[in-house]
Amino acid sequence: MENTAVKEIKIADLSDDNNLIDIAKSLDEYSDNQILKLCSALTDEKLSLIFTQADVSSQRRLVNFMTNEKIIKTFTFMPKDDIVDILGVIDIGKAKELINKMKEGDRTVINELLGYKEDTAGGIMTTEYITLYGSLTLLQAIHKIKELSPKTELIDTIFVMDDNKHINGVASLRDILINDENKTLDEISDKNFKYVEPEMDQEQVALMASKYDLNVIPVVNRNMKMLGIITIDDIVDVMSEEQTEDVLKMGGVAKVETLDTKIWDSFKLRFPWLLVNLATAFLASLTIKAFEGVISQVVALSSIMSIVTGMGGNAGTQTVSIIIRNIAMGNVKLKDTWKLLVKEIALGVINGIGIGLITGIIVSLIYGNAYLGIIICLAIIGNLVVAGVSGLLIPTVLDKLHIDPALSSSIFLTTATDVLGFFIFLSLAKLFLPMLT
Amino acid sequence: MENTAVKEIKIADLSDDNNLIDIAKSLDEYSDNQILKLCSALTDEKLSLIFTQADVSSQRRLVNFMTNEKIIKTFTFMPKDDIVDILGVIDIGKAKELINKMKEGDRTVINELLGYKEDTAGGIMTTEYITLYGSLTLLQAIHKIKELSPKTELIDTIFVMDDNKHINGVASLRDILINDENKTLDEISDKNFKYVEPEMDQEQVALMASKYDLNVIPVVNRNMKMLGIITIDDIVDVMSEEQTEDVLKMGGVAKVETLDTKIWDSFKLRFPWLLVNLATAFLASLTIKAFEGVISQVVALSSIMSIVTGMGGNAGTQTVSIIIRNIAMGNVKLKDTWKLLVKEIALGVINGIGIGLITGIIVSLIYGNAYLGIIICLAIIGNLVVAGVSGLLIPTVLDKLHIDPALSSSIFLTTATDVLGFFIFLSLAKLFLPMLT
Repeated sequence: MENTAVKEIKIADLSDDNNLIDIAKSLDEYSDNQILKLCSALTDEKLSLIFTQADVSSQRRLVNFMTNEKIIKTFTFMPKDDIVDILGVIDIGKAKELINKMKEGDRTVINELLGYKEDTAGGIMTTEYITLYGSLTLLQAIHKIKELSPKTELIDTIFVMDDNKHINGVASLRDILINDENKTLDEISDKNFKYVEPEMDQEQVALMASKYDLNVIPVVNRNMKMLGIITIDDIVDVMSEEQTEDVLKMGGVAKVETLDTKIWDSFKLRFPWLLVNLATAFLASLTIKAFEGVISQVVALSSIMSIVTGMGGNAGTQTVSIIIRNIAMGNVKLKDTWKLLVKEIALGVINGIGIGLITGIIVSLIYGNAYLGIIICLAIIGNLVVAGVSGLLIPTVLDKLHIDPALSSSIFLTTATDVLGFFIFLSLAKLFLPMLT
Repeated sequence: MENTAVKEIKIADLSDDNNLIDIAKSLDEYSDNQILKLCSALTDEKLSLIFTQADVSSQRRLVNFMTNEKIIKTFTFMPKDDIVDILGVIDIGKAKELINKMKEGDRTVINELLGYKEDTAGGIMTTEYITLYGSLTLLQAIHKIKELSPKTELIDTIFVMDDNKHINGVASLRDILINDENKTLDEISDKNFKYVEPEMDQEQVALMASKYDLNVIPVVNRNMKMLGIITIDDIVDVMSEEQTEDVLKMGGVAKVETLDTKIWDSFKLRFPWLLVNLATAFLASLTIKAFEGVISQVVALSSIMSIVTGMGGNAGTQTVSIIIRNIAMGNVKLKDTWKLLVKEIALGVINGIGIGLITGIIVSLIYGNAYLGIIICLAIIGNLVVAGVSGLLIPTVLDKLHIDPALSSSIFLTTATDVLGFFIFLSLAKLFLPMLT
């Protein structure tokens, strides 16, 4: 029976964890029948790995092929944070059934973990770690670790507590092994360790781990009582997730859309953003409309005015992306805003002169009118300054207002560079109208 | 003496590594005098931490405050990959001097590491790890590990080799501790481990680590001889770096520009991109110019035509950002292109009908001409289909041509949605000209 399943799903070795992860990641290509065979062929422990590593949609499918008892059994092989993740995506009635069937101790932990927001330290932490009293000798500690480690996910770092069970240090397994075995944990543990509270945003946790090269971060409450740990593989997942979000948001997709997202869901994700942009487009359109009299006299204006706004949009996007990324990394300090503002204005002028001169010369030659060239040159300089100032201030202000700058900056930026770009250019044209006709 | 330095740089505790990392990250705010005091106050070991964690510009500064002998001394406390990173950013003559002063064994390793490209597995790997023969018992292994660990960065994973020194398994310290001490390493080691060759791109390595939850990846040559290891903290750094690059590239900044980049350097980074975009803007401008006769008869066209191109650009950017991110994560398979193409065309039509109808109605009301509304509605539908198709195909084709889609997609996309957007709209207007005047 196992062999049939093995052959059909074309997997050489179902005992190799890496192969299992490959299967888990491509479960959406499996038929119901193949999944059924997989569930029966694998031990509960191996199945728990597939279950953990599968995509959300595959997790929802898998639940249907197992009895509640079997699901609970696979849960016993999973870190608690993974159980919570699965419970969060399946049908809520089913999740409650499963929680009720758990052992009481597990049930309490799971319910606690379910209480934290998904994207906070509490939401990504797990509860399999070792805490030991600081008064233990290293020899005693090693015995304890050997005893506890089959049931524990992470043993490379041991959390050291005082008599009141408050964490006051961390000790690496390495230091425990290489030091004199008669020393106590207190003597060798690092007291200046980094920790987080459960409410901290997961992106902040990832930044901290990245900055201080941490492999595991303890999550504690205000009294330094241990609540859980965040392991580096969860940090890596957070970083990958945040990276996806950043790229999509900057492109105007508010929530994570994958290649598999159904058309109707994609529509619901993308349409509202287009609608917001439509409002901006109409604003720009009305700005032009106000100058229709000028354009009707010099129709050439209509073909070159979009150069002014296009270049403003491009230059502004450059500034915005640098500022957004530095905000995300915690590098933007309010006191530096003035310095950055001066820099962006100067850059707007320099880039504006460069782009403006080239454009002005070409326009003069094409339309045989030097004034048209001078006007577009000035307008481009002006709009590139607008772009630099808006590109800096818009994400900075949005961030202060706790609005996500990655998503919302571009819409405000385009409004500024389009409306002001058309306005500057067409105003100048109106002013110099006698020289243009 | 130490106390003076301590006070001046306002740091409570120079023995705490986390404080030192904070100092390292903000060295640019320190005067030469303060850095001088720091260098003299700290032990070589602590100074090596500052040196490693500092920004590139601070590393360059630090080199000036130390004799070659002192620099070499701090190098002895650093993983080899960090030494290579520092040698890569300082003056090349100075780097050669330093390499020549190293012990012969170190010199060979460093020269080898310097031979790998910076953004490959070889470029980010380090050489401090433990390899043991598989025939050793676990008891013997533990003794070896205790003996070697003071000189080794990573001891949580032991690499197991056969008699020919070819790696054939990995064993975790955890498994070595919890198993019967009379078993051999061969008996407990994992034979199905993941490894990479030194030429692999660092982003691929990070994806692999993320997918398989790896904490360390061995780098081997074709004969399975060990060359180095990549540790999880380097993976985290790679991910953070790639994230920054992605965000900046999508915004049209080719190389990493920070807030501290000098104006002239920022200009050199941003101007070429604006110049490329200027070419696109002129293409669009010439498209409009070809229809100046139509516009001169219906000047309203000039104020509403930018709505068509604006919406095309927005919709296309949504598609591009989803495709770029999925290419980076290795999710885009060529065989799925047809399916995705159908989806994007369908989305273009649906979104186009939605946005087109709204725009058409408003335009009809403002200008009192229903035909103008119908034309802009049709043009928007057409341009949103152009946007979907280009948004999918441009990054896919660029990736196949080994051109970075994150940087170059937007320019081709804008060209397509601007030129075709104006063309579709103004052609329709020309066709229906009698109804518009």
